[in-house]
Parts: sequence; C-alpha cells; structure tokens
Amino acid sequence: MTNLHRHAPLRVALVGLGTVGGGVIRLLNTNGDLIARRAGCPIQVVAISARDRNKDRGVDLSPYEWVDDMNSLATRDDIDVVVELIGGSDGPALTLARQCLNAGKPFVTANKAMLAHHGLDLARLAEKGGIALKYEAAVAGGIPVIKGMREGAAANEISRVYGILNGTCNYILTTMEKEGRGFDEVLKEAQELGYAEADPSFDIDGVDAAHKLTILASLAFGTELDFAAVATTGIRHVIAADIAEAAALGFRIRLVGMAQNSADGLFQRVHPMLVPLDHPLAHVDGSLNAVVAEGNFVGRLFFQGRGAGDGPTASAVVADLIDVARDEYGDAFAMPVAALTPQNTADAGARVGRTYLRFMVQDRPGVLAEIAAATRDAGVSIESMIQRGAHQEDGVLVAIVTHAGEERCIRDTLERLAGSESLLGTPMVMHILD
Amino acid sequence: MTNLHRHAPLRVALVGLGTVGGGVIRLLNTNGDLIARRAGCPIQVVAISARDRNKDRGVDLSPYEWVDDMNSLATRDDIDVVVELIGGSDGPALTLARQCLNAGKPFVTANKAMLAHHGLDLARLAEKGGIALKYEAAVAGGIPVIKGMREGAAANEISRVYGILNGTCNYILTTMEKEGRGFDEVLKEAQELGYAEADPSFDIDGVDAAHKLTILASLAFGTELDFAAVATTGIRHVIAADIAEAAALGFRIRLVGMAQNSADGLFQRVHPMLVPLDHPLAHVDGSLNAVVAEGNFVGRLFFQGRGAGDGPTASAVVADLIDVARDEYGDAFAMPVAALTPQNTADAGARVGRTYLRFMVQDRPGVLAEIAAATRDAGVSIESMIQRGAHQEDGVLVAIVTHAGEERCIRDTLERLAGSESLLGTPMVMHILD
Repeated sequence: MTNLHRHAPLRVALVGLGTVGGGVIRLLNTNGDLIARRAGCPIQVVAISARDRNKDRGVDLSPYEWVDDMNSLATRDDIDVVVELIGGSDGPALTLARQCLNAGKPFVTANKAMLAHHGLDLARLAEKGGIALKYEAAVAGGIPVIKGMREGAAANEISRVYGILNGTCNYILTTMEKEGRGFDEVLKEAQELGYAEADPSFDIDGVDAAHKLTILASLAFGTELDFAAVATTGIRHVIAADIAEAAALGFRIRLVGMAQNSADGLFQRVHPMLVPLDHPLAHVDGSLNAVVAEGNFVGRLFFQGRGAGDGPTASAVVADLIDVARDEYGDAFAMPVAALTPQNTADAGARVGRTYLRFMVQDRPGVLAEIAAATRDAGVSIESMIQRGAHQEDGVLVAIVTHAGEERCIRDTLERLAGSESLLGTPMVMHILD
Repeated sequence: MTNLHRHAPLRVALVGLGTVGGGVIRLLNTNGDLIARRAGCPIQVVAISARDRNKDRGVDLSPYEWVDDMNSLATRDDIDVVVELIGGSDGPALTLARQCLNAGKPFVTANKAMLAHHGLDLARLAEKGGIALKYEAAVAGGIPVIKGMREGAAANEISRVYGILNGTCNYILTTMEKEGRGFDEVLKEAQELGYAEADPSFDIDGVDAAHKLTILASLAFGTELDFAAVATTGIRHVIAADIAEAAALGFRIRLVGMAQNSADGLFQRVHPMLVPLDHPLAHVDGSLNAVVAEGNFVGRLFFQGRGAGDGPTASAVVADLIDVARDEYGDAFAMPVAALTPQNTADAGARVGRTYLRFMVQDRPGVLAEIAAATRDAGVSIESMIQRGAHQEDGVLVAIVTHAGEERCIRDTLERLAGSESLLGTPMVMHILD
C-alpha cells in the first residue's frame, strides 16, 4: 500500500550497462520528477556495475558509484533493489540473482533466458525472503503483459495465450512480405541496420520467443515453468514464395508462440503460422510485439507495442521499480511456487487444425500424384493444392492447405514422403491460426 | 505483499444485481478455485443488496445474505470489501461509496459516471482511511487499461491517451460501415438486439466515453479529474455518406475519446474522427474497445478487448478484488490526490490537424463558390473537395478534406457560413487522427 508514502528515495544498483542499462539511466534522468510523484518517492540509481569499466557508453556515469564486485551489492544496506541487465541464462546473471535473493535484496530483471530456465528456483528464494522478484521487461519489452496476465486477467481461466514475441523475426517476415524479398537478403540487411544480432540464431530459431512463452504459460495456467517442453521452430526456412502463397490465400505469416492448456496437458510451441487477415496478429508489423490472451470471462484481450529497444525495455524495468517503491508486488508467478502445478506435455499430434504444407519438388511427371497419395494414405484431407513454377531449375513449388485434421496425419504424410527422390529439400509445415 | 498469504476468505458484499452483478457471482462460482490460488485466499460473496429483492435475475441468490439497507454494509466487521454495481453519478451509489470509504471499508466500483464527477473526493476519503478504491471495470470493461496506465506505463511521460471507449457507438459505426446503412436504422436494430439502451443518449452522445476519458486523462497526466472540460460530440449526425466518403479517402470513422497535454493546458475531447487505415484503431470493429497510450520511452501501447458485457466487466471487477486480497493496491489515481495538478483547458482552436467537413447544400449555382470563399477567407487550405448527388431532392453533399491547419480556422469557416440559405442543416466536422 502506498498510502504511507516512503519519502526516502528508492536506491537502485544497476548491473549491466548495455543499451537497456543506458536507457534506464536516461529514463530516470528524464522523467525523474514524474516518477517520484507516481512512485511516492524518488527512484535513484546509486551504484552501477558491468564487465568493462572503461567502455564508452554514451551516458554520463560519473554520478554513480562504480562497483567492481557486482555480487557485493547483494548485502549492501544502502541499496534497496538490484536491477540485472546482463543477460544470459546462467553465468554472472544467475549468480547475482541468487546472491541477491538469498540475501533478501529485491531484484528486478529483464532476463527471459534466466527466468525460463531458473525462474522457479529464483521465485522460491524471493518467496522465502518475502521480497520482490520482478521481470516485466523480460516479455514483450514495453508492453505490460506480465502485469496483464498476472493481475489484469487474473480472474479468468485462460484457454490459450499466444503472440508475436520476437521483434527481429517479425521485422524480417513483414519486410519479406512487403518487399517480396528472400530471407537471407532481409536478414543481412536487418543485421546491417542493427535490428538483428551478428549471431541471430537465438532470435530467428525461435529460442528467444520460447523463453518468453515459457514465462507467459506459467502465468496463464498456474503451471511450473517448463522451457524444455516448448517445441520450437524458427523462420529460417520460410521462403518468399511461402509468403506469397499465404497472401493469395488470405493469410500472413508470423512467428507465433502459443501455449494452450487442455485435459491432456500443456501444449507450448513457437513456430511460423498462417494468420488470417481478420485476426489482430495479422496487422502487427515491423518490430512490434503483441500478445493475445483468451479468458473464459474476459474473452480475447490483445496487447500490442514495442517489444525491444532501450526505451520500451527501460519503461518496463522502471515500471517494476515503481511497483517496488509503492510496495505493490507479490508472488513472482502470481501464486506461491508450491501452488504451481507440474503439467504433462500435451501430444501435439492430437491437435486439430488446418495446415499449410509446401514442397519443392523435381519437375517431372508423377510428383503431384506421389504427394497426393501420401496425404490420402495419411488421412489428410486437402482443401487446396497449387503447383507453381514449372520448368524451373531449382524445382517446382507445391503448396497444400489441408482441411482441419489431426496434426499426427501431417507428420505421417511427411514420413511417407521421407526419402522420396522427387523432393528437393525439407518440406515446410506451418499450421493455421484459427 | 502477498508472501504472507491470508488464508481467511476475502468477504465481499455485492450491491447492485444487474447484468454485471450476476456476472460477478457467476465468475466467482465458476473460477473460484483458480482465483483462490491466485489471490492467496478464497474470494466469497457473503452479502448482496439491490433495489428490488424479488426480481428474477436468473442467478441463484439463496446462498447470500440479503441486506435491505445497503449502507449498513459500510460498518459491518464481517465484510472486507464492498462492490458497487448500481451505477449513476449520484444518488445511492455515491451515498454508499462515501459511507464505505468514510468507515474505512475497501470499495470496488464499475461506476465511471460517479468517478468522473466525484472521483477526487472519493480518492481523498480512501487515502485518509488508507484503504483501496479500485475501478478497473469503469473504463474499457475487461481490458486492464486502468492498471496499464496507473502501473504499466507509469515510468513514462504520456503525450496523449485516446481510444474507442464506447462499444455501442463502435457497433453502430462499424455496422453502418459494413452494411452501408443509415444511423437511425442501425440504432433501432442495435436497440432490438440489446446492444443499445432504450434511451441511448448516454452512449451515442458521447457522455459515457467522456466519463471514461476523464479517468484516463487523470492517470495519464497526473491531473485532477475534470469532466466539465471534456468537449463532447456524439455520433447522431454521422450519415452513411460520411462513412462512404471517408472510406474513399482511406479512413474509417470511429468515436474517439482523446486527452492530450501540452504547455497550454489539457485538451480532452470525445468526437467522431477519421482514422487512417494503417492505425490500429481503424481495425477495432463491432462492440470492441481499445485504448492507445503514447509514452516518451515506451512509444505507442495498444490495448484491445471487450469493453462491456457481464463477462468482461466481471473479469475486471474480480481482478480488483484479487488485488485487494493480495494487498497490492495504492492510490486510486496513481498518486495522492494532493499531488494531482489542476490543469487549464487547452484552447482547441490552436490545435493543428487535418479536418473533414461535410455540408448538405441546395442544388443551385454558386453554392460551391460560397463555401470555397468562406474557407479561403477563414484561412483554411483545402486538400480535396467533392460534390456528389446533383439534382437530388434532399440536397447535394459537399465534402472537404483540409490540409493541416489550426482548428480555429474551421470554426471561422462555419461562422462565415452560418445563416447561409445555401446550407441544409448543420455542417459535419470531424478531425482526422494523425
């Protein structure tokens, strides 16, 4: 409760001084007065730490005490809360988190990888100490979806939570879509523009989205975080022709992280999907993120905003600090860790839906018949089948949209075609969002 | 902090048993176990009150104690929180709110009208008692925008907050758009379907949206609530031809409530606007609500969902109860009432933007010249001017889109044309969202 305002400042130690760390400093300097009114007290960075003291970060760090041993912050009485912006699931970030929480020091982090892997352990420590463990910035950057799930939608049984959780992938896919260009070319440009990392695999292979989905799923369903159960496919194998075929059918391709709970268990998947044009996710363009939660009373909630970048991420970090200053926080994952339930992983094969299948095949007689036979034998019912690009050297494209059916039949189709000399490369499978 | 869980149930008295009241009971019955896990304790309705005890509400009320004198709930030790769902800015709802807050009883309400008019007084009482005054359901139904503004975006200086705040108006406008039908006909159908009230004026004249905007503006800007300063125009005078002209120009018409802060004061307006197709509000259809907040670090946040109905509204009411159970709440308007600033009303005449003007005129020579001269003399620069429907008995339509300019020039144009015998009826003015 904030009625009894603290008047003493909230003293923050900031660990990790990359883009986001700089953003937090800039935000607190720019909006300090406003934040003090809202938080009930000033929020002040007093100490900072990072790997390299001498790097030029474009921010004046002279007002802040430099600390070489970041772990010493855990036990300092003149620090009220530690903000971790180092990143990485293990290593120094995890050590710092454990030291802080063990020592009873409130902890704010943007580290989705660490939470996806060690969130339960860290939440247990926070609970034991009766202190805050906050992480709004870990999912969807500036969009308050952690708060939206943990509090805003808390009265609902959530049937599924899903969204566009990685801005880099969405930038690449929507640029391919608007400009009709190929994946490799757009990725390269994104790297040059700083929208994609030099090593882009965490983003484009869906790992980053899977970390975020793991966290959302726990909040949505009251289940233990289970990163290992997320089936993850990235966007490397989406080609321009997939986007064109999808468009012709009234869909856009988005990398969607989805978690759904059912009697058979928890289903968690990150993969490129065909999104119908009348669904709000189809209109999420560029590096934006968006999250949809479907609740049994609230219906469909949709949140959209900037999912990365120093400003939006700093906005979320400081929102957490304001909650700490206001003393408005509680269990990290919405309930005590002991109340979270372990969950079986649902069999994706039993999921029912429509699917887009794309094959690159040799341009020779009988190929279509071979594919059609495999789908028939696997029990897949075809809604449409298109062959394009006859007599091209790099093969012919065959795109199929199925009627709604069990995903196991799709798997079976691919197994039947495995090793076929007609196929060039691995077939592309994308499910259709309904 | 929730770490020290309450184990005793949170005992709720529910006052007002209309659609939403029934929804709250149904929600707590349906999702009770889940809510107990998330809240840290069961949330139980123990007492109910409404005007008419004998009305059949389609909900079994026998488990709950019926209370004739609702105000007696304020001082009962066996009630932890009172939920008010009576509605009305004054009268019994306000009396109940004052009695409860004066007596130190936590209070949850969905009553936007009461808050818009008396929110500051009620917040002062809550503050004095150190108790919760919560109202997530008062704005945008099930969408957690109060929390989004009060907490999620709290680190930001907000430049403007705006949105589609009335589902009835949005249903009417989007039905007119999709079916090319007139306002009166669609309103009548909406009333028959139960989407609009028998007396629809609060909705279609924009009063309901203005109540909600008043609340959002205070949260966004840290200003005192000031309903009287909201300039409000409803949708009664939007005709099918306006929607068609807007569509031809790449816009959709939405009733937008907007608050913006600037050096010359606070601007608050509810009126139908032309929204460009690439803006997310253009895709908010039917009875959905949506809110956009633009912050200096987070950028543009967009929230969409169901803004009315028993399920979504109950979802918001129970989210408030969960916050109360978790002891995660604070100042109703994000800071102590004394910290909120009174604000001058900005002069709308100084606002710069593009405008759509539509005239119905006599079909006779010289009318276009007369309008063109008035715009010229008023300093309005015209981007496009269309005349349609020559030789029709009910007049000819002249639609103008201006270049960006000060709104005072639009007013001046209308003054110059006032009393002109060429004009049939009042010209329509809609500003364009940029």
